[in-house]
Parts: sequence; structure tokens; C-alpha cells
Amino acid sequence: MSYNSFGHVFRFTTWGESHGPAIGAVVDGCPPGIALSEGDIQPWLDKRRPGQSRFTTQRREPDEVRILSGVFEGRTTGTPISLLIENVDQRSKDYSDVARAYRPGHADYAYDAKYGFRDPRGGGRSSARETAMRVAAGAVARLVIPEVMIRGWVESIGGDAIDPASFDPEEIGRNPFFCPDAAAAARWEAKIDAARKAGSSLGAVVACEATGVPPGWGAPLYAKLDAELAHACMGINAVKGVEIGDGFAAAALSGEENADAMQPGNEGPRFLSNHAGGIAGGISTGQPVRVRVAFKPTSSILTPVETITREGEATTIATKGRHDPCVGIRGVPVVEAMMALVLADQKLLNRAQCG
Amino acid sequence: MSYNSFGHVFRFTTWGESHGPAIGAVVDGCPPGIALSEGDIQPWLDKRRPGQSRFTTQRREPDEVRILSGVFEGRTTGTPISLLIENVDQRSKDYSDVARAYRPGHADYAYDAKYGFRDPRGGGRSSARETAMRVAAGAVARLVIPEVMIRGWVESIGGDAIDPASFDPEEIGRNPFFCPDAAAAARWEAKIDAARKAGSSLGAVVACEATGVPPGWGAPLYAKLDAELAHACMGINAVKGVEIGDGFAAAALSGEENADAMQPGNEGPRFLSNHAGGIAGGISTGQPVRVRVAFKPTSSILTPVETITREGEATTIATKGRHDPCVGIRGVPVVEAMMALVLADQKLLNRAQCG
Amino acid sequence: MSYNSFGHVFRFTTWGESHGPAIGAVVDGCPPGIALSEGDIQPWLDKRRPGQSRFTTQRREPDEVRILSGVFEGRTTGTPISLLIENVDQRSKDYSDVARAYRPGHADYAYDAKYGFRDPRGGGRSSARETAMRVAAGAVARLVIPEVMIRGWVESIGGDAIDPASFDPEEIGRNPFFCPDAAAAARWEAKIDAARKAGSSLGAVVACEATGVPPGWGAPLYAKLDAELAHACMGINAVKGVEIGDGFAAAALSGEENADAMQPGNEGPRFLSNHAGGIAGGISTGQPVRVRVAFKPTSSILTPVETITREGEATTIATKGRHDPCVGIRGVPVVEAMMALVLADQKLLNRAQCG
Amino acid sequence: MSYNSFGHVFRFTTWGESHGPAIGAVVDGCPPGIALSEGDIQPWLDKRRPGQSRFTTQRREPDEVRILSGVFEGRTTGTPISLLIENVDQRSKDYSDVARAYRPGHADYAYDAKYGFRDPRGGGRSSARETAMRVAAGAVARLVIPEVMIRGWVESIGGDAIDPASFDPEEIGRNPFFCPDAAAAARWEAKIDAARKAGSSLGAVVACEATGVPPGWGAPLYAKLDAELAHACMGINAVKGVEIGDGFAAAALSGEENADAMQPGNEGPRFLSNHAGGIAGGISTGQPVRVRVAFKPTSSILTPVETITREGEATTIATKGRHDPCVGIRGVPVVEAMMALVLADQKLLNRAQCG
Repeated sequence: MSYNSFGHVFRFTTWGESHGPAIGAVVDGCPPGIALSEGDIQPWLDKRRPGQSRFTTQRREPDEVRILSGVFEGRTTGTPISLLIENVDQRSKDYSDVARAYRPGHADYAYDAKYGFRDPRGGGRSSARETAMRVAAGAVARLVIPEVMIRGWVESIGGDAIDPASFDPEEIGRNPFFCPDAAAAARWEAKIDAARKAGSSLGAVVACEATGVPPGWGAPLYAKLDAELAHACMGINAVKGVEIGDGFAAAALSGEENADAMQPGNEGPRFLSNHAGGIAGGISTGQPVRVRVAFKPTSSILTPVETITREGEATTIATKGRHDPCVGIRGVPVVEAMMALVLADQKLLNRAQCG
Repeated sequence: MSYNSFGHVFRFTTWGESHGPAIGAVVDGCPPGIALSEGDIQPWLDKRRPGQSRFTTQRREPDEVRILSGVFEGRTTGTPISLLIENVDQRSKDYSDVARAYRPGHADYAYDAKYGFRDPRGGGRSSARETAMRVAAGAVARLVIPEVMIRGWVESIGGDAIDPASFDPEEIGRNPFFCPDAAAAARWEAKIDAARKAGSSLGAVVACEATGVPPGWGAPLYAKLDAELAHACMGINAVKGVEIGDGFAAAALSGEENADAMQPGNEGPRFLSNHAGGIAGGISTGQPVRVRVAFKPTSSILTPVETITREGEATTIATKGRHDPCVGIRGVPVVEAMMALVLADQKLLNRAQCG
Repeated sequence: MSYNSFGHVFRFTTWGESHGPAIGAVVDGCPPGIALSEGDIQPWLDKRRPGQSRFTTQRREPDEVRILSGVFEGRTTGTPISLLIENVDQRSKDYSDVARAYRPGHADYAYDAKYGFRDPRGGGRSSARETAMRVAAGAVARLVIPEVMIRGWVESIGGDAIDPASFDPEEIGRNPFFCPDAAAAARWEAKIDAARKAGSSLGAVVACEATGVPPGWGAPLYAKLDAELAHACMGINAVKGVEIGDGFAAAALSGEENADAMQPGNEGPRFLSNHAGGIAGGISTGQPVRVRVAFKPTSSILTPVETITREGEATTIATKGRHDPCVGIRGVPVVEAMMALVLADQKLLNRAQCG
Repeated sequence: MSYNSFGHVFRFTTWGESHGPAIGAVVDGCPPGIALSEGDIQPWLDKRRPGQSRFTTQRREPDEVRILSGVFEGRTTGTPISLLIENVDQRSKDYSDVARAYRPGHADYAYDAKYGFRDPRGGGRSSARETAMRVAAGAVARLVIPEVMIRGWVESIGGDAIDPASFDPEEIGRNPFFCPDAAAAARWEAKIDAARKAGSSLGAVVACEATGVPPGWGAPLYAKLDAELAHACMGINAVKGVEIGDGFAAAALSGEENADAMQPGNEGPRFLSNHAGGIAGGISTGQPVRVRVAFKPTSSILTPVETITREGEATTIATKGRHDPCVGIRGVPVVEAMMALVLADQKLLNRAQCG
């Protein structure tokens, strides 16, 4: 049990608040002998970094990662890898509003109820900034599973979905929304601009797919690969739903419609469909592993909302400051990272039990 | 790490296959001094028991639980509680079909790929029968959280949903579908009868609500109450999606629509809505904790489906035998049990850290 | 965290009290495909079984183990292996003495202080009977590490030690004391007879050696193989000390005396001594892994000892009944089992990280 | 499972090598609202710091700790506390000798055998420098258990023990050996000076006692307080033996001699002796908790010892550089820290289960 760790044999722990001197992660259980430098991690952080377009928070953090341990002469030694990012853009802002009253949708009231008090600066530990360390740890995880290719994208924003027929993987990197459908990207631009200008925010659905996962990762029941992915993704800030494969849509199907029929293939079966999202009985089947993740709209909005003060009196609160109008967009590299972290752990666990 | 355990300080481990001599669970970390007898567990098992209507499998198992340890003079001692149910109705059936070829949607191929072979009798470890032990362990968990009331129901079957306006909690116990809407129950009867007669099956969505959860259970990030519930529910057989509160619907909302505004209440805030499903920042807020779970249709269907044999040759398979036409129905007591198990664990964990 | 489990990826959980209907263990994480039947476990239980000579408790338990899950057609399936032994010889004894007052050296007072009450029958959960399940689980573990040979023996009883010069491994099985020195065995016979007749008891030191452990099992610092063995052995009832290699004797040596010099060997180094007990930096070196374990004298003695009642009043207590005059003797198969359980787990963990 | 973490609900993870830029620890699960600043940690680090007398290594590290997270306005927030110490005195030394051949008694060969290579600078991860982070984390743990007073001392060096009759707690702080017996301290000065000048080293036994531990901490069997302490202490570098209470001496006693008789006391029993070291059945009794720990002599000695190169060829090696002639001396604050860390964790665990 650790409140701030994830994983079993490939395991990481994160620490740090938005407005402290730094944030960090410790990656433990990494196999030895893997080539690793800051250069393997930084590109993924850059992908997640705020301030790159007007559609994400204008907070400017270089998010430059340093490796403080666990690497010798460019290779992992098998001992813990400490990753650290200094917090640079900590505006000496006035947090008295946030300290005084509870922002609806935020962790403010729950933290106070649990811990008796909280660090109100930038959300403290509950800041989305924490996800940078997931991305950093995920970059290490990717090196543990070179056989796997992971790709995430945004599937809908504010209820406006991509057209699956227009899915173009090349398009994902061409717009600031990780959107695989150029037409949808154009619509989203207008949509998010409007929300941003109104001081409002939008929810989003992120999808992520891992190809190259061999059959046999995961385990039945309490260690299901589905359950591990659900845990991983539901622990990301602002996430309220997780689906594997067809997810809720499968609940509307008949058994015939949902069956992933098999034909003889080159190695193992050739599946005729992938309703299961690449996982059966909790174990990977060799098909692409697919997860969909629902991000609620950013809770920080300019519109004043009814709330109460710490003393229990009625008031209203509006959250000024620099916020992502749609936190789900930057959720893409985070979901990808969690996918990598789960798969790296499961690869090692499978090797432990099954050799 | 254990592949067959769940929980941190209140923790249970299950064992057993559908066609072995028995199945069982060990509940560890239960507080001492709680009154406990078989009579506290049996009613919940009876609720889940197969063979009670024509809408569930006709396998007849009395599912009579015995407590083998951890209780002295009617009270828990704080030592492990061993629960055991003997398997009674093990028809000496011919499993050569299942042993020979892979049933699509089942764990057959994945188990073979991972373990090299599998126990084909009744699905072996992946049998839905395992969920009986979740229900039994959950009955113990309920006694740890007497302040909490847990209620589950079926929200839709095969895409046919209840009318929220007709929600009547009293109705849930009056029909074999755990359906809170009498009109929907009538429709479902026809729907499931048709599926059953056609040898087909249907998916379902189960909802579950826990009231009386005080604010403060759960923890940020990797130990979020949302994440624990997601892990718990996604580990149930046939589950492919989990939502907390509004879940995927929240992804289509704006920040204003999704905000759970607060007014001064008797103790703590009075919330004007519950989009968050009673959890903010991973910590309970005192509102009802709400989860929705998607069950895929039962994979065992009479219609022959293309598949391959263990040797990789093309064939078709149809699954005869006694199966639930809609496994989601009996999922209700299972989801309730997982809710109880998560909350009992979180109550103790919160007590550990915060006194 | 589980209070009644041990191990990381090869993990077991035990349950049951001396005077309940049965005791049991669940072994989780066992590799699939290993040939396993009751016949692989029973011989080790027989070695530990009470009532085989006048030097152990006269309680007669056949200790017949049943495998309830996890094995199909004679091979492990990779799913949890449930082991169960029914309690047969539960004399309907009067436990009112033990229930009323605290036996010094026993867990009585501590259990009451922690749990508020306790099961006084035969020591409840703290009964040495629990060690039967360690032996059963250990028998499974041995099959996971066929490359390793484990051998335990008693090194001293009541302060009377064997002569290392007379160490004869063949002798261990020839006397009821697991004594490798025929002369010491003869002395111990008289010593224990005297203790037994006087209603007294004696402490003992047990040694255990594992040969065939390859270099590389274990890990630095908090996961040291030494630390795992210390945890494993210190958790056995009545154990109060653990040494690896020279242990406390090393604290009296100089660096030169303690150095295990190396010469070129066939595979890896040839060590000229083994002060380190086969472990350096927490990792096995390929030398025999050696542990020594101190068992205190059985706390159940006929001599009345001053104590207090549950109500806090002065009284004396003498423990009648059938007890081992030297619980350390039957500790030999238990220490061997814990050695096997630790090594099986470490083998799999090493495979997880290092392939 | 984490290779570099310790504890269950109060848990810490350490990272870092002797010659990297820094070392650190993350403390997770700390109760909220505890006053904490660097000033609460630094004094314990100073006690352990090298270079304070000629009897410890002459390496000079200020060991100045920084708190990077988890504290707001001087109080713990309940989120992870990141502690960091920069490495200052990293002499640009030539480590080619150590890289080329295996130092007997060191982790060199074992690391190479496990990981394929290793960081040879200053012992890398296996450096005693890691223990600074145990001391830092232990300082936080002490604040969680203000009811407990922990005191450690050296009991013998190179086989020369203190006279228990001369035990004077005041004396411990007056000499550089943490020696409670002034006469022994005088003898040790000469002894260690001789060893130091000869380039040799000495082993030591460290004792540690915790008073104020209430009855009820710990749990039976696999979670015994004895077992947790054994794990904690055996994981310290150079430790090869652990005893609780009388330890190995108890193995030479009779049941009568070993019984800790009880009389009515003010609260709970008054014990007439403490052979058990304050723990019965794995649970604290309210008596002082006592542990003894054997440190082997420092493996770094000037005398050349036979060994082999990485390529398997015969050679000799002598370890130059700045080393503790008796690593056990500085082990005192480390054993104290591990005692604090175990007890803080057990306090919270007991609160989880028993309220």
C-alpha cells in the first residue's frame, strides 16, 4: 500500500505540488542495462507541456527533467531511477480566495474534510501538474516494452466526436488537439476558442491503443489487465469513466454481435473483430489493447458558482488564472504514459510467473 | 502483489474453480469484535444464487457458506476469516468441445497463451461462479461499514434503459431483474425470453449507489476512491466499462453544467447536484457514491461462431449448457459486494492515516 | 499489506485456528504446468507432525492435506492453490483457566490488549499448529526451485550444542531431534526427557542451508535476501533471533577474518569461506545460503508462574495439556519451508526484473 | 512490492547513489497536521554524519536535508514528503580498481551477477551513504509516535562488550562510540585506533530500545512486530543478525527462566522481567521493545585479499580510501531510525484495524 505509487514489480512513486520547489518521481524495479538519458524522456514531456498553444493553460514551465539516480554510463543499473522537474513559473499569486472558499468540482472541500487543511496554491497535490511525472515515468516504461507501440488521441470534445471514417493517424500530430480527423479539429478550434473566451471549459474523451502486446499479459480476476488499466486511468485527474474495447456499447449488444470470431492466423488466431479491446479473461490476446477515458470539463471556470466558505457560509467563487479550457487534450500523453506503465509492469509480472 | 486478492488493509483472497470440490475466500484485516455468523452472509449469496428464475442459469447450487476460522463465540477475532462453499452441482459433462477449440469472447485462448494449458471444466477459474466469493466477502465488509447503505440495480439490458422518472427503489426486489422501473421490467422479460430461446445473450448496465459514506474516504491520485472502485468493478467477469458519477456523459458537459454547487447544510455543504458521483479529488464528499458498470453479453451462445482449435485449425463452436442469458443481472449483488469491499477498506485506511 | 500472507509474486496466505474445523493456506502466483499432488506435500507434513515420539506433543493429528483448487490433471494451472487440513484431535478440553488468566510468554495478554478478546482454545490463531500450513505451502515452493536443495537441523538444545566436527548429514534423519551429531542426540534425549518429566521446556537453535541457489537472487536494501529470510523466520512462532551466515559471531571478527576471499572457479568465483552465508549486498552469491534461528523454550510449562487475570488480579497459572517440551525441534521443517518459500519468491522476482 | 520501499501504511522509498548528484527519500502516508521542518530532521542526520571524529570515515558531507513537498505552512499535508540531500564530497577518485575486480565482502560480484554490470563509484547504491535517508525518514516517523522514546547504543565492538552493570544512558552522548559504559569506551578508543592504523576493521553489536510503546501494536504471524523489526534491521547495510529481547540467549533457557511473570500494575500488568523484548505473539505488551543487531566488520580493508577480476582471473585487492573502521558505530542512529519507522507504521496499522 502506498497512496502515491503505482505498479507491482515495475513501480513508480510521485511527489510534489504545483507550487513547491519541484516535483518528482521514483521509478523502481526497472530492468538493468537499458539505455536511458534525459533525451529519452524530454520529448514526451514536451508533448504534454503547457503553454504551447492558446488551447492549453498559459502557464509556462520548461518541464526540464533531470535523472538523479539509477543510471550509470548511460544505462539503467536496476536501482531506483529518481526523476526531478523544478517548478519555475510559480507566480506569487494571491490564493486567499481559494483558501477561503471551496471551488465546486475541485478537491478543496474533500481535502479539508479528510486532512483538516490543505495547500491551496495551485491545487497543491491535486494539481494537474502531477501528471508530468506520470509522463516522465511512462517514458522509462516505454523502453521496457520496445515491442509495443502506443498511440493516443482525442475522440470527442464537449460531445462533438470525430468521424471514425475520417480517422487519419498522421493527422494527430498536426493539430493542437491530438485529433485524428482534420474536419473535427477545425470544429474543435472554434468550440474551444468560444469556451476559452467565455471563461468556460469542456470535457473530452481520450482513446489509446497499444499494438504489439503479445498474448499472455495480465492475469485473471483481481489482476485483470482491464482492471489495471481502469485503475491507472481512473487515477488521472478529472477522469470519471474508463472503457476497455467497446465498453458501454458492448452492454447494448447481443452475444453474436459481441463475439470476436477467430480464424487461423500466422501466429495464433486472426481475430475478425476486437470488441474485447484486446483482453479476454483479463489477459491480452495479441490484438490491439484499447482503452477509452472520459475527462470531465476543467472545474476552474470564470462563471461564479454557488459555494460555501471554510466556515460554512454561503458565497460564490469564480476561478481566475491560467487554466486549460479542456484538460482532456493534455490528457492524451498522460493516458499513453499510464498505458505504458501498466504494460511494462505486466510484462515483468508475466515473466515472473510464466518465465 | 497477489493475483487473487483485493484490498489494502481490509483484504480478501479468493480461490477455486467451477468444477473443483469447493470455492472459498479468506478475509484478512477485519476489525475484531464484530458479530458474524453464516446468517449474515447467506442472504446475500441467496440474492446472487443461480437457478431462481428462468432468466438465470439453471445450474442449481445451494451455495451454502461455512465460516471455518476467525470467529469465536459469534464475534470476529481480528484473525483471517475463511469462507467456503462446496460445489454441489458438478454435472459430469463432456468438456471435450471446449478443451479442443477456443470459445470467442471467453478466456480460453488467452489462458492457453499465458499458462500453456487450462482447466476447461465450466470455465475453470474464469467461471462466473467465482463471484459468489466476492458476495460472501462483501457481506463481511458490510458489517465493517454499518453507516453505509448500498443499493444496486440494473439500468439497461440490451440497450433498453429504464426511465429515470419511473425509478422506484421498492420495485427492485419485486422482479427477477433488479429493475427499479416496472415498465422496463415487463419489456425485459420478453427481451430476455427471446434471447434465451434463441440461444443468444444480452449485455447490461448495472448501477450502484452507496449512501452514508462520510467525507474523507479515499486519497489523491493513485489511491483515488474512483480508481479503487474502477479496479474493483473492472475485475468482475464480463465487465468492460466503469463510470463514476456522470462518467462519459460528463465529457460532453461544460464546466458550468458539471459543477456541483454547494450551499450551507446541516453538517458540511449541501450539494445542489452530484455529477461527481460523491467523489472529488479521489476523496468522498459525503454525497452518495455512484458507479455504473457495463457488462458485455454472456459469451456462451448457441449460435456457432468461427474459431480455431488448439492446434490452430479452423472450426466453429457453439456453447451448449446452462448459462445466464444476461450475466449482468446477477452482476447486481456482485457490484454491491465490490462497493462494500472497497468502502470497508477505505474506511480503515482513512482511519490509519487520519485517525 | 496482509497480516496473514507472505511473499511478493509467489505468495501464500494462511488461515485457521487450532480448535476450529480446519486450517488452510492459499498459494498464489505459482508458475503453471508444475506436477503437483497431495503426495508432494504429505511427506513434509509427516516430518513435522506431532505425536511421533515422546519428545513432541502427544496431540495426534493425521494432518492429511487436501488440494482444493489450482491443479488440473495433475499440474498447476497458475491459479490459486487452496490447501486444507481438517482438525481432528480437538479434545473437548476445559479452557476456562486460559480464558481467565494470562499465560506468561504466550500471546494471551497481547491479543486481549489489541483485539479486546481472544479465542483461548489451544492458543487460537497463535497456536503452533499454524506452522503446518507453512510446511504445506513450502512443499509447493520446493517444486518451483528444483535446482535448490534445502537441509535443516537442530544445532543446540537448552544451550547444549552439537560438535561441528561430528556433523553427519545422514544422522539428521536417524533421531527424533533432527540432530546431525549422534553424541549430541544421545545427550539431548536425556535432557528433554528430564524437562518433559519436570513439566519444563527448553529452547533450541535451528540451522538451515540451501545449496544450489544461483547468484543473483535477492535485491539491495529493503528487499535484501537476508531481510526476507529474517522476516520469514522471525514470523515463526517462538522465534526470537535470526542470523545470516556468521551472524553475531561476525560482529566479533576483524575485516580480514570476515572476508570471503575468491579464486577463479568453474563458473564464477570459488569462495574460500562463507562468513556471509551466501549473501552479499542482499543478493545471493552462489554459495550455500545459511540461516540460524533461535527458538525460545515452549511457554507452556507445568510450574505455576505469577500472572494476572483478565480483571487484573494477581494469580498463578500452570499450563497443563499436551505440549512440545522443545518447540524448536519441530521448527526444523518449518524453517526449511520458510527458506523454500522465500527462495521461490525471489527466483520469480529476479526473473521479473532481470529476465 | 517495491525493492526500495519499506512500510505498509506509513511507507518510505529511498533512491540515490553515493556518487550521483543527490540522494533522497519519499515518505508516504504520513498523518496530516504534524509540525515538520528541516530542523526536525537535521539533528538526527548530524548524529549520523561522517567525519566527526577520527573513528568514522573522513568523507565530509554536510548532509543538509531539504523538504521538497508535503509540508504547507509548517505542517504535513498528508501528501508525500520528498526529502533530498545533495552529494557534496564526491572526490573525482579513480575507481578502476573496484571496477576491475571484486572486493570480498562487498556487493560487487553479486551486483554483476544479477544486473550484468554495476556503478562502482563508492559502492553505488550499496553505499552506506543510503542510510542517511533512513535517518531522515526516521526523523519524520518519530513525530508520528511522540509517545515513544527510542534509544540506541553500541553494546560491543570486535567482541569487547560493555559491562551491563556500568550502563549509564548519559554516557552514550559523551563519547564518539555511542557507548553507555565509560570504561568500555576507553578500551574501544584504543581498539579502533589500532584497527584504523592497521587498515583493518571491526564488527559491532548495536542495541536499541523503545519505551512508551502501548500494548497492541503488531499482529500475529506474518505481520509480527518482531518480524517487521527483523526485516527492517536486516536490510541495513552490513547487518547479519537480529535478536528480539533475549534472542539467541533465550534458546539456552528453560521455560521457567524465560517466563516474563506478571503482577497487577497501574495500567495493565507489571512484568517482572522482559526476556521477550516487549513483544508476545508478535504484538507489543507495553514493555520496552528491545532489539539487538549484529554489524559485520567493514569490508573495505587495506590488507590485500585474494579475489578475481570481472574476467574471472586471479588477483588481489586492497581497498584504499576513506572508510569507517567500524561501520556499526554509525549504525546506531540508523537502527534507531528503523525502529521509529516500524513503530510509526505499526501504530497506524493498528489504528486501521482496531480503531
